[in-house]
Amino acid sequence: MSMPLPQPYCNSSTNFEMSARADNDKETQKQRREECNGVQGKAEHLNGAAVTAAGTAALVSLKADADYFRGYSTIHIHEEMLTDQIRTNAYKHALYENAKHLRGSTVMDVGAGTGILSIFAVQAGVNKALAVEACEIAEQARLIVKENKMEDKIDIIKKTVEEFELTEKVDAIISEWMGYCLLYETMLPSVLRARDKFLKEGGLMFPSKATLYLAPVHDEDLLKRVNFWNEIENKYQVSMKCMKSIAEATFTADADIRVIPPEAVQAHAADLCSLDLMTATPEDVQSVKSSFQFKCFGHTIINGFISWFTVEFPGGRILSTSPYKEATHWAHTVFSLQKPFPVRQDTEINGIFSLKPHPRNHRCVEVEIAFTVDNQESQRQTFSLHNTCPGRQLHNEDRLIPDLPRKTLDCTKSSLENGGSSPIQERSSKYGKKNSNAMKIY
Amino acid sequence: MSMPLPQPYCNSSTNFEMSARADNDKETQKQRREECNGVQGKAEHLNGAAVTAAGTAALVSLKADADYFRGYSTIHIHEEMLTDQIRTNAYKHALYENAKHLRGSTVMDVGAGTGILSIFAVQAGVNKALAVEACEIAEQARLIVKENKMEDKIDIIKKTVEEFELTEKVDAIISEWMGYCLLYETMLPSVLRARDKFLKEGGLMFPSKATLYLAPVHDEDLLKRVNFWNEIENKYQVSMKCMKSIAEATFTADADIRVIPPEAVQAHAADLCSLDLMTATPEDVQSVKSSFQFKCFGHTIINGFISWFTVEFPGGRILSTSPYKEATHWAHTVFSLQKPFPVRQDTEINGIFSLKPHPRNHRCVEVEIAFTVDNQESQRQTFSLHNTCPGRQLHNEDRLIPDLPRKTLDCTKSSLENGGSSPIQERSSKYGKKNSNAMKIY
Repeated sequence: MSMPLPQPYCNSSTNFEMSARADNDKETQKQRREECNGVQGKAEHLNGAAVTAAGTAALVSLKADADYFRGYSTIHIHEEMLTDQIRTNAYKHALYENAKHLRGSTVMDVGAGTGILSIFAVQAGVNKALAVEACEIAEQARLIVKENKMEDKIDIIKKTVEEFELTEKVDAIISEWMGYCLLYETMLPSVLRARDKFLKEGGLMFPSKATLYLAPVHDEDLLKRVNFWNEIENKYQVSMKCMKSIAEATFTADADIRVIPPEAVQAHAADLCSLDLMTATPEDVQSVKSSFQFKCFGHTIINGFISWFTVEFPGGRILSTSPYKEATHWAHTVFSLQKPFPVRQDTEINGIFSLKPHPRNHRCVEVEIAFTVDNQESQRQTFSLHNTCPGRQLHNEDRLIPDLPRKTLDCTKSSLENGGSSPIQERSSKYGKKNSNAMKIY
Repeated sequence: MSMPLPQPYCNSSTNFEMSARADNDKETQKQRREECNGVQGKAEHLNGAAVTAAGTAALVSLKADADYFRGYSTIHIHEEMLTDQIRTNAYKHALYENAKHLRGSTVMDVGAGTGILSIFAVQAGVNKALAVEACEIAEQARLIVKENKMEDKIDIIKKTVEEFELTEKVDAIISEWMGYCLLYETMLPSVLRARDKFLKEGGLMFPSKATLYLAPVHDEDLLKRVNFWNEIENKYQVSMKCMKSIAEATFTADADIRVIPPEAVQAHAADLCSLDLMTATPEDVQSVKSSFQFKCFGHTIINGFISWFTVEFPGGRILSTSPYKEATHWAHTVFSLQKPFPVRQDTEINGIFSLKPHPRNHRCVEVEIAFTVDNQESQRQTFSLHNTCPGRQLHNEDRLIPDLPRKTLDCTKSSLENGGSSPIQERSSKYGKKNSNAMKIY
């Protein structure tokens, strides 16, 4: 037997306390930990306490933020982001390509992490980068800025962007806020609040647009894992077919993050929504509700949907997490179906995709997909993307916590026909016609 | 950005509640959950409560057991164990090879999981297998036994082996109790208690012996991850060398589980201890303390030690997790050094390896390695193997919990010379002479 070990990023002893330890200065160490644990501390001292129903929502929110900020206090996540050259170079070249707009300007880097985007901005010619980072990685960012001799150009501000104040406005806001399924982590509202507070009129947003896509898939990897239980008989001469239903139930219970090969995709993608980051409001981007329509390529079994996203920078550069492009650290978000169904060429799948903050953790998302196949069979399935890092699981007892009411933006056809309009534009289209346009910008 | 998602086995909604759900019978579901959560429940209802110092140790122990049993209530861990054909076939063939001893006998399978070892035992000719499994997987094991038409031969007993009573004794005990670094999970004491309570005199243990090994390594994968921060400059024209020390501190803070290639091993392995499972007591196997001596193969930098283990079955079949053999799901336990050191041919490394239950979770282990190089430089480093699954992290606040006194078996040379003797035999040897014998049984 072998029980799983924790993921490295979940390891409380491997965060940036290390950097403090290297100081060999216990006072600095203590102070740093207190600073870093700002949000964490607030939530953690409440952990063991009995909580009234009234205080629950605030506590849940505080705990979610604590986990979120602690997650970015480990080296592993920064290693992963910098290893992703598709991601990092998209920002680098988008900034370089906008050198004529950026030269001599002031930019704000929201959630700066190691500060690499601020450094790219300075390399592109900005006069001042305000690197706002609440997490302990800010201390390392200070050292990195020094190492690159950019102390006069980059100010590291160890605060949340909500806590930060500034007398003058900035010319551009840079931020890498995208999570799995685009909105997981719910960082975008903070970026949009920063835009409203700090960005000059006519200032630039990096990125400036974001689009979320959905496509039906024939997911062979899932089938292999389910059929594993059929194969026990061939392997060991012991039958375990009864485990197959458990495997199916397990793998379809929640969304999964995996790289799906392009040949798995069984119809042109639907673009669920496009966010204009110059105009969207923080409230707008909390939730998505959008219709989709697919016309299948040919004979196959559909056993899931996948979502991915693109973001666009000023000047038109696209960062894409599409299965038709080289994989990024975001991979694809896989929604595996409890009831796979057969399709033939031109089978129509019509449905509604809804994404909203998880009722038990506002940093996580919950997705519902409801659809019909050739206007006959109908299915509705709910998936969670849980954020448990580092080490705080959504336990069964948390289900006692009530669902908080949240604004959901309805992008379905009927709501739009009824006069709905919004920065999240419905772009889902019939039978891949508009979808095939969407394909061009992958 | 992209925060990590939980490991599937850490996902509370993907455990065997699924199987209950499939029943479409809410009462059965509730009942099953209550049964399955026996130990979990006891610990969990205490979670939010304020705890006195006096009750802390018992609570910690209860929580550790809760996490442990819950871990085995997901399909993922059983998939992983059955995917490991080296592991599973070792048991299968060991049982088949002992057919003449097993025919018509009664065996007990401790921690039976899916029940596959009991099924192998029946295939090998036993008359009755008592499959003891406390976790919810026991319900699935019942279905698997039925599917294989062995209801008359295999009794599934949904209890811990400590809770189980029996009037007659059994002819053999089968158990796959081995964890990372052999003793992680601390399941062996339960198996030995079952032996003392249930095994006939002269009965067989599967496995009957276990040996833990240690070897110094030149671990290139670690170097690559540390040097990643040097390479940022080549990748992006941004210098991040200051991150290297954080990476080093992070990766050397705890033990890691990875497959290490055989060419990384830089001396003949030392066998830290050999457990005779016919005679060792539950108290004996809680801790290991053993000296080791290596004579290095040649010029290199040593940046860590790795441990692995073998177990031996009656008749002599060996299941090995050695780097010289095909990898298993146990991989190797890697202890990365804060201060790597150079060696040349015949450089001697002398030291003491200590393993004990983690003070904050008796299912986890803490390892200390103290050593000198050519009797000059000395180092001492402590490593934890944390069990955080599913989702219960050892938080900083847990450090307030006092260290519990535990028996440690001293296998160091001096203690043995002073008349110490024990079923954990010291087999560490000078300059690879006895080590090279040890190598034969990998």
